[in-house]
Amino acid sequence: MRRDTRIGITLGDADGIGPEVVLKALTRADLPAEAGFILYGHETVITAAERTSGLRLDRRRFPLHETSAVPSPDAPGRGPRAGSGAASFRWFEEAVRAAREGAIDALVTAPVSKAAWAMAGIPWRGHTEYLESLFPGAIMSFWSDRLKIALLSHHLPLYKALAAVTRAGLLRFLESLALAVAAVRPGGFEFLVAGLNPHAGEDGLLGREEIEEIGPAIEDARAAGIRVRGPFAPDVVFRSALGRPDVIAVALAHDQGLIAFKMVAFETGVNATLGLPFVRTSPDHGTAYDIAGRNEANPASMAEAIRLAAEWAGRLTASPA
Amino acid sequence: MRRDTRIGITLGDADGIGPEVVLKALTRADLPAEAGFILYGHETVITAAERTSGLRLDRRRFPLHETSAVPSPDAPGRGPRAGSGAASFRWFEEAVRAAREGAIDALVTAPVSKAAWAMAGIPWRGHTEYLESLFPGAIMSFWSDRLKIALLSHHLPLYKALAAVTRAGLLRFLESLALAVAAVRPGGFEFLVAGLNPHAGEDGLLGREEIEEIGPAIEDARAAGIRVRGPFAPDVVFRSALGRPDVIAVALAHDQGLIAFKMVAFETGVNATLGLPFVRTSPDHGTAYDIAGRNEANPASMAEAIRLAAEWAGRLTASPA
Repeated sequence: MRRDTRIGITLGDADGIGPEVVLKALTRADLPAEAGFILYGHETVITAAERTSGLRLDRRRFPLHETSAVPSPDAPGRGPRAGSGAASFRWFEEAVRAAREGAIDALVTAPVSKAAWAMAGIPWRGHTEYLESLFPGAIMSFWSDRLKIALLSHHLPLYKALAAVTRAGLLRFLESLALAVAAVRPGGFEFLVAGLNPHAGEDGLLGREEIEEIGPAIEDARAAGIRVRGPFAPDVVFRSALGRPDVIAVALAHDQGLIAFKMVAFETGVNATLGLPFVRTSPDHGTAYDIAGRNEANPASMAEAIRLAAEWAGRLTASPA
Repeated sequence: MRRDTRIGITLGDADGIGPEVVLKALTRADLPAEAGFILYGHETVITAAERTSGLRLDRRRFPLHETSAVPSPDAPGRGPRAGSGAASFRWFEEAVRAAREGAIDALVTAPVSKAAWAMAGIPWRGHTEYLESLFPGAIMSFWSDRLKIALLSHHLPLYKALAAVTRAGLLRFLESLALAVAAVRPGGFEFLVAGLNPHAGEDGLLGREEIEEIGPAIEDARAAGIRVRGPFAPDVVFRSALGRPDVIAVALAHDQGLIAFKMVAFETGVNATLGLPFVRTSPDHGTAYDIAGRNEANPASMAEAIRLAAEWAGRLTASPA
């Protein structure tokens, strides 16, 4: 990691557990020592999280980027509110701008509420959708020690996700993925691609997408020099990727991948958006309104999101080109 | 368990690991002591498995039901062959007949090869499909200490599985499931039903099946006195069912459930067909031709399938009609 790696952190929805897990993660002993941090949020939210957690944040080491966006009045645990939704979006938007301008090398986002964003009239469904609007081809991926997955599609109704499984689309996805993770790990990754149908279609008996779309896309990608195999039976491929640091399993739809991931990496997983000109990670949990304000939130996933962002930012920004 | 519980065991595909895991399971110290056993297969196959495993099967305690079906000549590990397919089907057919006639209370099946069945001209894709042809409404389910799941559909292409998610069909399924497992556990089970779309459709934003079909079916089932909740986000519901002995998670398609199951219960899971007039279980692995004949096969899942069959047979046949 370069000594001047700068990591931006958004506080997320003020009514959820985001601010609390950020504070807890930033005061842990294993925080990456060489990184600089800048917070995107509001002073009232930090103060409330200090009250909840009993912790005190060093404002000089973790300066707050000032914005005019103020969340709904302090009331953690009260559920989605338009004011908090508008504020969490504004902080995120500011942080993304900073990342695009190079003021920060990596962005870690605390959870926002899709419902609160909708109440505030924000047209995007979440962080990833906003990033996709700026960077078409951005990829949703999930990382843990035990399993790594990348999703061909994510927030689509299942029947639309099926229709999105095409030879051209999957090839494009594999090319983007290969490019995005090339610098993450010396030696790179092998991609194992799931089929769509039971037993990966069983030679066409249980579906033809494997023969007509998925298999050919994998052949095309191999011809282009990408290290990829498949399609494998969906109920086998994630198991095969388990515990292999050099393997990323490619899921063709949201739950195919996330069912597997959440069974083995529930509180330590990290959501990473790939294919951006900067690093972006977040914990794999939501706002958890039901436990907000109670000092019960587990910061493990947020701490891991920060650690991964620092590691990648150092590696990616240090790499030539 | 009644003292006279009789368990039939088919040897499965002679070229796979079935005969080996049956022998290993039957010679384990933890074999249910009070049950009687009868094998469906051929003497040459038992002899070959004895050679492979170095074990010796007590022919008086484990008598062989005689049939004229002989598998392809001894060659474990050689892959699917028509002769072995025809024989494994014939043994299974005999065992099912015995179960229907009440000669055995439970049936445990070693793995067969779908490919070998197809080569032999058998029109069914597997054990469950054959049982479904005799008993429409039979249910595929998977059991382990950590997780229990039941599948609304199984060997269908995914787009057909989507179309099979209807209010009437799901209600009928929940009614059959409730009836089938009523006697399995004192106090019964609660069913947690998965949604179909990401985040269970997120109030219709990501799909409408939860609103139009799944939710209403669950309401209908509750009105009929069935203990059931949902639909829950597919990537959360299996996690929620984990470690809860009184919960069965209902998957709407094959891989939704089996991805979750195989992540947490790979070598100890049991496949059980519910809704039959007898108990039927099997290990959750296949023929594993690649390790057949090498004495490397793990009998844990087969042993658990026998244990569960003995437990259920005692309970179900002992219960008043």
